[in-house]
Amino acid sequence: VMMKFVVLVLLLQIYIVSSVRYEPNWDSLDTRPLPEWYDKSKIGIFLHWGVFSVPAVQSAWFWYQWKTQKIKNVVKFMEDNYPPDFTYADFASQFHATFYNPDQWADLFEASGAKYVVLVTKHHEGFTLWPSTVSWNWNAYDVGPHRDLVGALADSIRNRTDIHFGVYHSLFEFYNPIYLQDVANNYTTQDYVRNKALPELYELINRYKPDVLWSDGSWNENSTYWNSTEFLAWLFNDSPVKDTVVTNDRWGKDAICKHGSFWNCQDKFKPGKIIKHKWESCMTIDKRAWTHRRQIQIEDVLTIEELLAEIAETVSYGGNILINVGPTADGVIIPVFEERLRQMGQWLKVNGEAIYETQPWFEAKDNITFPGVWYTTKKQGNSTAVYGIVTFWPQDNKILLGVPVTTATTRVTMLGVKEPLKWSVFKNVAMQIEFPVLSYNQMPCKWAWVIKMENLKNQ
Amino acid sequence: VMMKFVVLVLLLQIYIVSSVRYEPNWDSLDTRPLPEWYDKSKIGIFLHWGVFSVPAVQSAWFWYQWKTQKIKNVVKFMEDNYPPDFTYADFASQFHATFYNPDQWADLFEASGAKYVVLVTKHHEGFTLWPSTVSWNWNAYDVGPHRDLVGALADSIRNRTDIHFGVYHSLFEFYNPIYLQDVANNYTTQDYVRNKALPELYELINRYKPDVLWSDGSWNENSTYWNSTEFLAWLFNDSPVKDTVVTNDRWGKDAICKHGSFWNCQDKFKPGKIIKHKWESCMTIDKRAWTHRRQIQIEDVLTIEELLAEIAETVSYGGNILINVGPTADGVIIPVFEERLRQMGQWLKVNGEAIYETQPWFEAKDNITFPGVWYTTKKQGNSTAVYGIVTFWPQDNKILLGVPVTTATTRVTMLGVKEPLKWSVFKNVAMQIEFPVLSYNQMPCKWAWVIKMENLKNQ
Amino acid sequence: VMMKFVVLVLLLQIYIVSSVRYEPNWDSLDTRPLPEWYDKSKIGIFLHWGVFSVPAVQSAWFWYQWKTQKIKNVVKFMEDNYPPDFTYADFASQFHATFYNPDQWADLFEASGAKYVVLVTKHHEGFTLWPSTVSWNWNAYDVGPHRDLVGALADSIRNRTDIHFGVYHSLFEFYNPIYLQDVANNYTTQDYVRNKALPELYELINRYKPDVLWSDGSWNENSTYWNSTEFLAWLFNDSPVKDTVVTNDRWGKDAICKHGSFWNCQDKFKPGKIIKHKWESCMTIDKRAWTHRRQIQIEDVLTIEELLAEIAETVSYGGNILINVGPTADGVIIPVFEERLRQMGQWLKVNGEAIYETQPWFEAKDNITFPGVWYTTKKQGNSTAVYGIVTFWPQDNKILLGVPVTTATTRVTMLGVKEPLKWSVFKNVAMQIEFPVLSYNQMPCKWAWVIKMENLKNQ
Amino acid sequence: VMMKFVVLVLLLQIYIVSSVRYEPNWDSLDTRPLPEWYDKSKIGIFLHWGVFSVPAVQSAWFWYQWKTQKIKNVVKFMEDNYPPDFTYADFASQFHATFYNPDQWADLFEASGAKYVVLVTKHHEGFTLWPSTVSWNWNAYDVGPHRDLVGALADSIRNRTDIHFGVYHSLFEFYNPIYLQDVANNYTTQDYVRNKALPELYELINRYKPDVLWSDGSWNENSTYWNSTEFLAWLFNDSPVKDTVVTNDRWGKDAICKHGSFWNCQDKFKPGKIIKHKWESCMTIDKRAWTHRRQIQIEDVLTIEELLAEIAETVSYGGNILINVGPTADGVIIPVFEERLRQMGQWLKVNGEAIYETQPWFEAKDNITFPGVWYTTKKQGNSTAVYGIVTFWPQDNKILLGVPVTTATTRVTMLGVKEPLKWSVFKNVAMQIEFPVLSYNQMPCKWAWVIKMENLKNQ
Repeated sequence: VMMKFVVLVLLLQIYIVSSVRYEPNWDSLDTRPLPEWYDKSKIGIFLHWGVFSVPAVQSAWFWYQWKTQKIKNVVKFMEDNYPPDFTYADFASQFHATFYNPDQWADLFEASGAKYVVLVTKHHEGFTLWPSTVSWNWNAYDVGPHRDLVGALADSIRNRTDIHFGVYHSLFEFYNPIYLQDVANNYTTQDYVRNKALPELYELINRYKPDVLWSDGSWNENSTYWNSTEFLAWLFNDSPVKDTVVTNDRWGKDAICKHGSFWNCQDKFKPGKIIKHKWESCMTIDKRAWTHRRQIQIEDVLTIEELLAEIAETVSYGGNILINVGPTADGVIIPVFEERLRQMGQWLKVNGEAIYETQPWFEAKDNITFPGVWYTTKKQGNSTAVYGIVTFWPQDNKILLGVPVTTATTRVTMLGVKEPLKWSVFKNVAMQIEFPVLSYNQMPCKWAWVIKMENLKNQ
Repeated sequence: VMMKFVVLVLLLQIYIVSSVRYEPNWDSLDTRPLPEWYDKSKIGIFLHWGVFSVPAVQSAWFWYQWKTQKIKNVVKFMEDNYPPDFTYADFASQFHATFYNPDQWADLFEASGAKYVVLVTKHHEGFTLWPSTVSWNWNAYDVGPHRDLVGALADSIRNRTDIHFGVYHSLFEFYNPIYLQDVANNYTTQDYVRNKALPELYELINRYKPDVLWSDGSWNENSTYWNSTEFLAWLFNDSPVKDTVVTNDRWGKDAICKHGSFWNCQDKFKPGKIIKHKWESCMTIDKRAWTHRRQIQIEDVLTIEELLAEIAETVSYGGNILINVGPTADGVIIPVFEERLRQMGQWLKVNGEAIYETQPWFEAKDNITFPGVWYTTKKQGNSTAVYGIVTFWPQDNKILLGVPVTTATTRVTMLGVKEPLKWSVFKNVAMQIEFPVLSYNQMPCKWAWVIKMENLKNQ
Repeated sequence: VMMKFVVLVLLLQIYIVSSVRYEPNWDSLDTRPLPEWYDKSKIGIFLHWGVFSVPAVQSAWFWYQWKTQKIKNVVKFMEDNYPPDFTYADFASQFHATFYNPDQWADLFEASGAKYVVLVTKHHEGFTLWPSTVSWNWNAYDVGPHRDLVGALADSIRNRTDIHFGVYHSLFEFYNPIYLQDVANNYTTQDYVRNKALPELYELINRYKPDVLWSDGSWNENSTYWNSTEFLAWLFNDSPVKDTVVTNDRWGKDAICKHGSFWNCQDKFKPGKIIKHKWESCMTIDKRAWTHRRQIQIEDVLTIEELLAEIAETVSYGGNILINVGPTADGVIIPVFEERLRQMGQWLKVNGEAIYETQPWFEAKDNITFPGVWYTTKKQGNSTAVYGIVTFWPQDNKILLGVPVTTATTRVTMLGVKEPLKWSVFKNVAMQIEFPVLSYNQMPCKWAWVIKMENLKNQ
Repeated sequence: VMMKFVVLVLLLQIYIVSSVRYEPNWDSLDTRPLPEWYDKSKIGIFLHWGVFSVPAVQSAWFWYQWKTQKIKNVVKFMEDNYPPDFTYADFASQFHATFYNPDQWADLFEASGAKYVVLVTKHHEGFTLWPSTVSWNWNAYDVGPHRDLVGALADSIRNRTDIHFGVYHSLFEFYNPIYLQDVANNYTTQDYVRNKALPELYELINRYKPDVLWSDGSWNENSTYWNSTEFLAWLFNDSPVKDTVVTNDRWGKDAICKHGSFWNCQDKFKPGKIIKHKWESCMTIDKRAWTHRRQIQIEDVLTIEELLAEIAETVSYGGNILINVGPTADGVIIPVFEERLRQMGQWLKVNGEAIYETQPWFEAKDNITFPGVWYTTKKQGNSTAVYGIVTFWPQDNKILLGVPVTTATTRVTMLGVKEPLKWSVFKNVAMQIEFPVLSYNQMPCKWAWVIKMENLKNQ
């Protein structure tokens, strides 16, 4: 009987999945449930790579900063190092990706504990990392690397079981003349959308079947200009990834923080509260840039402690975190980024239980000890565990927590440590937990420890 | 009375010009009269310039010869001189046009006696020499020279009174992916035509107002694919150059040698007979190529004698001649080409009367002395002159001509020589003309002498 | 009386220093006392920088591996990425040092706790990083960076009080034709030495006044070929750095591990015992290379634990350690190297007492707990401290040491921890020390802890 | 008897040649007879090729004009086209000699009628076109073309019977630091001479065995600095070319126009009178430069008429003429230069009799008809011919000559014309010659005709 029921539910699901068709409007599109894998994943890797990786000195907005904003140090850099008539497009032939090894990248991302990867396939510069039909001679196959950089990574990622492939795509392009013409026409024309932006999106989805479509560059126009809802209806109804794909909210200035599978809102979004709708915070290990900078210093790089604190905070508020590293024009993820990602992977091996497949608790952070204690929770069979991620080691090995309400059977452990921890009620208002006295080499990890609490009253 | 009549005719002409509207079909388009300036001009300059001028080693088809035909010496040249992953597009950033001086070019073309200039603005490689909206980052403004090469020359030519500006444009592109997609779709789509080829043509006409639109690359498709007749109807009805522009016949494989203001038929066309419809022979001073080749030798270069013979033959058969020189990637017309053009100009200063504004005689060449004597004719007031262009100096200073039929008043001169020439009837079948005995420095020119005959019976 | 005596001794020393003149033979040169600063310093930074930093893919022997050894992956790298006729010298113009900031470097080296810096000023490729008179157009001023890279760093280092500047110089050059001619002449000529090698050395000393002259490339010839003793006699008698300069042993194959202020013997020298004569171990943080490699992975990089263990071992055996980092062709010390150096600096701030100005104890390492405990010792006023550098945290917080013999007044502390440590005699054969129970954040450092022992019997 | 005498003279010559040894002083060196081939040859080709052929925009002094003279348009050219830190040495890696075909060059030089070739093997920039032992990484083998450009041409020239190979070598180098040091030392040192200039000269002679050693760059120093006389004594006594080599006068400011096999005095030397000592005028077909200029215009190029006039004048005054063409960095002699050289060859085929192996007549030019008539003379068996090279065709086919004194048997012909010319004595003071009445195609040549006069009184 049980089995039959399961089969029935399965069939029903298939039926629902295949029968529901979304209309090309936000109301309809918003009804689509979030594919489960995404919320469970929590951590993704973001990769900013492009022609800007050749000068590799400022940001992905280099072109704009040079030519439109005329930022002093960018202008000076060009004056000092290039002939006067050098153009941005001239950089492209110096983009070689000499050491690009997508299998090596995929191994690293897997080891980092991330569950999805979002590759910038075209940033605002308009240069596509795949051989797009509509970006002839301004793509990585025709100029520079002479490879399909997107396809190569898609294959390597797909050959791994526990990680999803995704693509970033900018609708907007700084200087695409057809786009600028549409703007000059006050958006009475949509030539750019029809002949460039949308064909690219269809190519990306049909060729590379990404599970994440991360749209960008939509702050100036409404989604009507971009034909976003029509495209998304196709994506959710008919595309080869209709059942698995997730997409963000950057589909028009009317859509940001309102529509989409998950919301990014602004870059490095920190809501400061639990948000009901799924959201994602994209941030970057180099505090100063999303792209490789050749002059990067260690002080610009997040420490592993800082990175883990960001992860804890984000997950506690219900978000996913998309951690950016900018590869070099050679196709290398520099060692300090690799080190951070591998440190994160080590930490997640011990503490992933408190991250993956969790949900925000009713309070995201403790109210006595703060900042520094972040809560997540997870059903495990009949019981529920609450996790407190403590981003520091308490001064005297004792910590007071204000949110958990204990019961007689409350049990406290530290992830990675066998023996349960002692705890007591402190002045009726708090739970005091004693951290274990461990010699240095007995410690389960060296940054951010997780207290697991079971049988709480308010679990 | 006379003046009134002239005014009336003029008004009538204006009325006709402005009231006639051509339909987008060949029958209608073919009724458009050829703007007069073109037939009168006879001689134009052709300029093959583009990314192919950077390798500058073979031809304008370099890309295709390398990648598709895999011509041995082209492949070897690339292997010997470039890294394995070098692409054709990588050449573009080495196209500098460092010494491009369009005023200097225009001075030269004027001195050459040519009456129009046809600049290759986009060859089959697809690289536009102007900042085309639809060829972003694959044009001379975004990559390489960083200038509007077309606009600069258009301005310089227009600042001279007696010479017309024209543009060459290739419909076809070897490797444009959108074009290739149309082909793959068996021409059921016209995306390339609508989004690339036609927008370029409109840009060229509207921005640079050329008097010649020299189309190319239409051997594979019918003119229906290219929407040629629609475009030409606009060109002749509504474009800013509707009254002056001429165009050739390369608008579809159904149009070649059939439609258009003038016919080019194939390259280096030599009909071998007088053709009623206006035609043009495009040819090139470097016998081996249309483009600059860095390894060019003097044996590859037409001598001035050979060049003048080509001009005489072409004009005698009713054609215009479009003489090609390929500038360097630096923007220089190399001295040997400049020398030929200036020699031609010297010759035309003396002998232009036999070329400009002439018409073919009833026979193009002599039937006794041949090859080497070419006829043109021209009305001058009430009388008519026949010109025999003699491309060699006769052995014993005497020449027999079989076509002219003399009268008692027949008068023969040599252009550039004051004294009339002696002539006689030879055995009743020919006219014998005595060339003047001139010391070397008295000669009117040093290559190809023109015999002017007036009062012939069969003038 | 005391003060008078001091003055006398001082005068005597000055007299000796100024009056002693060394003869150009090893017997005499070997009598020169080692300038004190060097032994006290213990830790130096080594910088491999040059044209090899442009391909940046294998090693400083890249040229030789490509052209003479024909190492497969090097040959392939060149074939894949460069045109066939590319030469090694062609790399030089791509050496830009764009972000070279010697003050920033000097700040980093100071923060690392190193007390001297040895810059490769000319490696076997022969390219000088200073504008050498005898290496015209094959130096960093004439080609590439267009700067005096040596002078700039010398100035920045000299502006800091507690760190010495030194230069590496290779006598040998792979392909210098004058050197090869001397070799072909079976060393009957010394043209290379007289016209290239020695003039360079004089330039380096006279212009940059380094306190370390680190010679290399002398494995093939005897010091007689190099005129080494004549040069060193000048260096020690008459040069501007005669009182402070130290030099190594690579002055001829007869000199290696025998003569010189300190001995390097082979690269990454590990004697495995205490050596009486001062020696230095040069090693590198990238386990695979001395030079920047663009494809470096984190697994190639020494962990801070490994680095500290190397330091402890080296100093315990009486050596200095010269820690290499290879800057990029851009002039950047990549973040992971910077991180290691700053971690080392943090460690030395707490534990430098056990390193700087110490001497080897009579045993370098413990005989019960090993590997992992390294001894140094130092006089402090009347008493003597023995330091045990423990490179791991003991399992149960207890450690047994076999070498120290305790007395009743023996006092044990951990550097960075206030409270003395408990110790006891274990089974009459060992000293057992209890490591303090510290919460994570109370620990004085996170890698390698130092036990300071005073009032030992065998101190 | 006759034959024996000849043998005797021959043996004596051999004896003298082999026994005479020159002392290293000018008095002795000046006694060396000029090897016969040189005076007979009259016409040589000069080739300016080097790193300056890469910018190819001004002259062989480009470096000096840029950095020392700071000539405005040179400085601007660099500012406009190169990054600020670009150095002259950076040009070298762009010197590719892609199409260099020395056999093709040799064919051309032979066809031009020249009898020797002088290749610039090192100009003032110091870059050697051969792999010099003393110019490591600043020569065409190590950087750029990656070939022995000198050896390749030497071989090709030597494979032809009637043409000699020669080398130009500059003693002086603008910026050689060792040279500059000698200068700074007020020439008390000769390090540059001993270690650079002389070794180069020995290499050139021993490796390439040139028949011309064309020295340059000696205007600042006396020949004692350069050790010129010592070197020349070796060259004339012991070198492999001691019997055939000729050298010019640029061996010190004391030697110019005084010593050497032949004198060049200044560039483009025009003495305006017959000089007893053998001399040579070096001049160049591009009136504005000795080196390839990419922007060259036809007005900068000598016409064939101008070139022949220069030849006639030079030979008449007893000089040889060294005609310069500057190859491109690609290794191409551009067509307009090739055309001039081939035109010269055509002319010499007809008129070489009046040039090769001639001697100046007692008067170099006519005194009635001038400018434009240049005399040479030659013994032919018992008789003597006098040649009048007439650089224009006389107005009425008649020319008056003031210098020749006729006899009854005086015979006048035009080279290339069978029939003798009519002549008469004009008013007792002049000889009047009637030029032949030839139709255009019967003329022996089209520029500069030669009148051969035999049996003159003053022959």
